Amino acid sequence: MPASVGPEIERLIQLLARLPGLGPRSARRAALQLIKKREQLMSPLADAMRVAADRILVCSSCGNVDTSDPCAICADQRRDPSLIVVVEDVSDLWALERAGVANARYHVLGGTLSALDGVRPEDLNLARLVDRASDPAVKEIVLALNATVEGQTTAHYIADLLARLPVKITKLAHGVPVGGELDYLDEGTLSAAMRQRSAL
Amino acid sequence: MPASVGPEIERLIQLLARLPGLGPRSARRAALQLIKKREQLMSPLADAMRVAADRILVCSSCGNVDTSDPCAICADQRRDPSLIVVVEDVSDLWALERAGVANARYHVLGGTLSALDGVRPEDLNLARLVDRASDPAVKEIVLALNATVEGQTTAHYIADLLARLPVKITKLAHGVPVGGELDYLDEGTLSAAMRQRSAL
Repeated sequence: MPASVGPEIERLIQLLARLPGLGPRSARRAALQLIKKREQLMSPLADAMRVAADRILVCSSCGNVDTSDPCAICADQRRDPSLIVVVEDVSDLWALERAGVANARYHVLGGTLSALDGVRPEDLNLARLVDRASDPAVKEIVLALNATVEGQTTAHYIADLLARLPVKITKLAHGVPVGGELDYLDEGTLSAAMRQRSAL
Repeated sequence: MPASVGPEIERLIQLLARLPGLGPRSARRAALQLIKKREQLMSPLADAMRVAADRILVCSSCGNVDTSDPCAICADQRRDPSLIVVVEDVSDLWALERAGVANARYHVLGGTLSALDGVRPEDLNLARLVDRASDPAVKEIVLALNATVEGQTTAHYIADLLARLPVKITKLAHGVPVGGELDYLDEGTLSAAMRQRSAL
């Protein structure tokens, strides 16, 4: 930015540009919008970030983020205690909760194994998963990992890790996404959908 | 968001979604990024917004935003006092300053005339422009408005408004953008570029 923009605005733009989805140009637009809507947007957002920064914790049981530890999901007695859904990231936990697909508790790995990025088993939240899976109340672990090479590698690693425990290890089904058009799908998806076809 | 996301995170996501360029999905990603980078990003950004919200003023002379009034540009004695560049928005002022095209002062209208959106002359920063243009030191007013219908309508309105004053009213040139391909340009641009052709 030119020297004619004050250091306060420049710092605001630089920090906004570090948010995912915002580049330098959209960070300038966002900064200007904040400045224009100072009372309605900038002040409340500053306060919301301050509150979040001061109060949000990582759940020591599942790795979710919340203002309490254990998090609201782990503390929820109505959740099925026999089921743990393993996800890569909190965003995946949020996606499954939005879809309301499982009345279960979760386990957030915090990433996937990746030789390329130097992510080793000890970098993931795995020791705590083995502890939780060893609880006799737990009957099934669903590996809800992304259908990427890293996600599937990690799924196989976890299946091996938990093999000695008396729990069922499952994974999400592959197939045609709801609303999806066959013409746009890759061969792997179509092949999986055909193999796992069901009676109408 | 599901009830399992705490109210603090939900409020953060809702406020982030009101930034230009961020929708509900990218606001969730941004919130998660902020939570993960609490010390490096969320705290500094909260502080930067608090400082900006408390200290940023609108320049009473030109309509720019800065922490001082008059703004750093209006207060800069090295700027040519004979030239005022009229722009629609602070973002346009920033764009011209980044390009370093004019060692001038600016005048930010805060929008364009629009019958559709109900923007009337009294809604724009025009009275102050007439005051400034009446200063004998000012010799030229450049109307650096967008080449849209609203921008050009506003430019003509301002030209009429300032017609009785002994100042030269100019506008930005139309033509082929640097790096632009003729094949992708509209007829109006090509026609203007041809009319205003110059010797090589």
